[in-house]
Amino acid sequence: MEFLTAVTPGEALGIIKSFPLPARRSVRVRLDEALGRVVAQEVVASEDIPSFARSLVDGFAVRVKDVYGAKETTPALLVARGEVKVGEETTLSIGPGETVYVATGAMLPQGTDGVIMQEQTRQTTHDIEVTKGVHQGENICFQGEDIRKGSTVLTPGKRLSAFDIGVLAALGIDEVVVYALPEVALISSGDEIVPVDVLPPPGKVRDINRHTISNLLNPAGCSVCFIGIARDTLDDVSAKLQEAKGLDLIILSGGSSKGQSDFVTAAVERLGGKILFHGINVRPGKPTIFGSLWGKPVFGLPGHPVSCSLILLRFVLPIVNALRGEAETRERVVRGRLGTNVPSSYGIEEYVRVRLTSAEEGSMVAPLYAKSSVISMLAKADGYITVPEGREGLEPGEEVEVHTFV
Amino acid sequence: MEFLTAVTPGEALGIIKSFPLPARRSVRVRLDEALGRVVAQEVVASEDIPSFARSLVDGFAVRVKDVYGAKETTPALLVARGEVKVGEETTLSIGPGETVYVATGAMLPQGTDGVIMQEQTRQTTHDIEVTKGVHQGENICFQGEDIRKGSTVLTPGKRLSAFDIGVLAALGIDEVVVYALPEVALISSGDEIVPVDVLPPPGKVRDINRHTISNLLNPAGCSVCFIGIARDTLDDVSAKLQEAKGLDLIILSGGSSKGQSDFVTAAVERLGGKILFHGINVRPGKPTIFGSLWGKPVFGLPGHPVSCSLILLRFVLPIVNALRGEAETRERVVRGRLGTNVPSSYGIEEYVRVRLTSAEEGSMVAPLYAKSSVISMLAKADGYITVPEGREGLEPGEEVEVHTFV
Repeated sequence: MEFLTAVTPGEALGIIKSFPLPARRSVRVRLDEALGRVVAQEVVASEDIPSFARSLVDGFAVRVKDVYGAKETTPALLVARGEVKVGEETTLSIGPGETVYVATGAMLPQGTDGVIMQEQTRQTTHDIEVTKGVHQGENICFQGEDIRKGSTVLTPGKRLSAFDIGVLAALGIDEVVVYALPEVALISSGDEIVPVDVLPPPGKVRDINRHTISNLLNPAGCSVCFIGIARDTLDDVSAKLQEAKGLDLIILSGGSSKGQSDFVTAAVERLGGKILFHGINVRPGKPTIFGSLWGKPVFGLPGHPVSCSLILLRFVLPIVNALRGEAETRERVVRGRLGTNVPSSYGIEEYVRVRLTSAEEGSMVAPLYAKSSVISMLAKADGYITVPEGREGLEPGEEVEVHTFV
Repeated sequence: MEFLTAVTPGEALGIIKSFPLPARRSVRVRLDEALGRVVAQEVVASEDIPSFARSLVDGFAVRVKDVYGAKETTPALLVARGEVKVGEETTLSIGPGETVYVATGAMLPQGTDGVIMQEQTRQTTHDIEVTKGVHQGENICFQGEDIRKGSTVLTPGKRLSAFDIGVLAALGIDEVVVYALPEVALISSGDEIVPVDVLPPPGKVRDINRHTISNLLNPAGCSVCFIGIARDTLDDVSAKLQEAKGLDLIILSGGSSKGQSDFVTAAVERLGGKILFHGINVRPGKPTIFGSLWGKPVFGLPGHPVSCSLILLRFVLPIVNALRGEAETRERVVRGRLGTNVPSSYGIEEYVRVRLTSAEEGSMVAPLYAKSSVISMLAKADGYITVPEGREGLEPGEEVEVHTFV
């Protein structure tokens, strides 16, 4: 098998990350559909949050200087001037020596610069005895203290969390402009592949990759469109690619044999595309293809389910993230210590499935070995580690980064 | 404010985790809707995967003893007896001194016990010269090597990953029995609360908690049903609780003032329920209520958005996980080192929002301070750390566990 344009993993990522992507589209979504979407348009606060000074406790609104030095034995005496209930507007104000009862969340009377918790007061017939002083601003959330009118609360590229959505809710923003989900065309290829609901005749197997790829890409923020299973002919692979035209990213899986690979590269070139590399010096997943077709990125992933998934995680997700428009993606990485050695080959970057276990001294990492076609072992793994190209293996006790699956 | 039944965080978790939950319902879902669902019924393989021995490479199927000791200089000579294409059934078999060309993924002829990669062979006019020996089983995926017929592939309590779904696809299982999503009733309460699309009159604020809670619970695997905003009257709180009857878990948010809390506890008791605790020695979020109503767990969460969210993550998610039926839930925890000290109070478990930054020596953790009503600071945090009850604070340089939000 020849890989005329085989590249190192670093070169592959360089080519992938420098692929000139078309401008992203943006769409307006409702707040209850916004979780995980990526902000496309700056959001500026059009008001102060809170819009009025509020009490953070049940207690008495005071002028701080009136209760300065108050103690159990020498309480400050204040005249009660009423109460503010939560949710109501108040026109009360506090003069020297006066106080007003305020519930948690209630609007504060004019002149308040501190609130004494109820537990630190005593009610007498005529007065409120305050048994402790307060700092300036204590137990108050001031107008604009949470969000200042005119401030930028979200910038393009921010992935919306539950709390970002809380910020939008606070501001009364019930729609937000986000990037459209990248539309990924998914093609399974190979004469040996049948759909899951078909009993495979001898020599054939069910389509696993369609399901693993979709279920890795959906939570990564893609809209996946399954085109179908391409037979091993130039015409059928070309026809399936044609159906994928217009989508943002094309992924073929399968075609691990030389003949099958050839159909994929030939079909991309016949349709006017260009192969950018064919083969990466990694294990598993060497026969990976990357190219450009109609200005869109196209991947040919190996057919073995394990190779296919690991290559997807390592080489396809970076372009998916670029398409999604998220400014900063945080990989799910856990550090742990190897319990055993991990043999590998110099010049090859190797991906080893591992289990993580907790120990007194932190996480322990145990490699799981199986052939690259064995999906059941992948399902038992917690993640994978990388043995760098420049190493012949890893030693017991070494600290490694585990890229976790879930 | 009195917390007659205030408990320690450990006691609170004990009461929550020992709450007698009703039996879980199960439902059958299609494979493309199964991601993240929890298996309710054991899945046993009804066939071997693969169902036939397959080649893992493009090359020549051999009898291992025929190529023993083969080298560049002393190749083994084999007679080519045809080819097996990928996806086709073969009736070929290999006799002594014979070989058959097999593509990657192709069915192996009878008698094969090793496959030589094509690169390690030379084709002559009459023969195939093999320039390297192979081990028994090399480059073969045997029948049943991935999944053995009769073996258990999934047990109840397993959360379905993309790879589990790949395993089901391999077996031709296109539907799976999972636990029903827990149905959570969500009630916002408080006279000060208006929906997001309403301009709040003076003294009122928009409903933030509805949105943060839903967006924390949905990805945690719940179906959230928003009942509405309850006014601060016993009748209205009771009426909203009545509407929540039949769902698996009831969450009220709001009611941080003494008066509001009283309505919640009174309404639960009026409907025949029981308050199990009112108040936890934590900060923020002390005025948390937990009880039992119609045999279902009911939470009264504090109204301040930060307190509400942190209490949800710390005290509500354990019961959500129990309702979901997942056997083993892995918390998202990152270890890091504190850059500064974190003051706290003895006897109170405190939750401090933090930012994580990467440094040479690992993750650094920086506390973010803001009042518990300030949602914008929560949106800036990467997670929270816990200062234990028995500590008066944490020191710079201490290693801490960050519970990450995303």
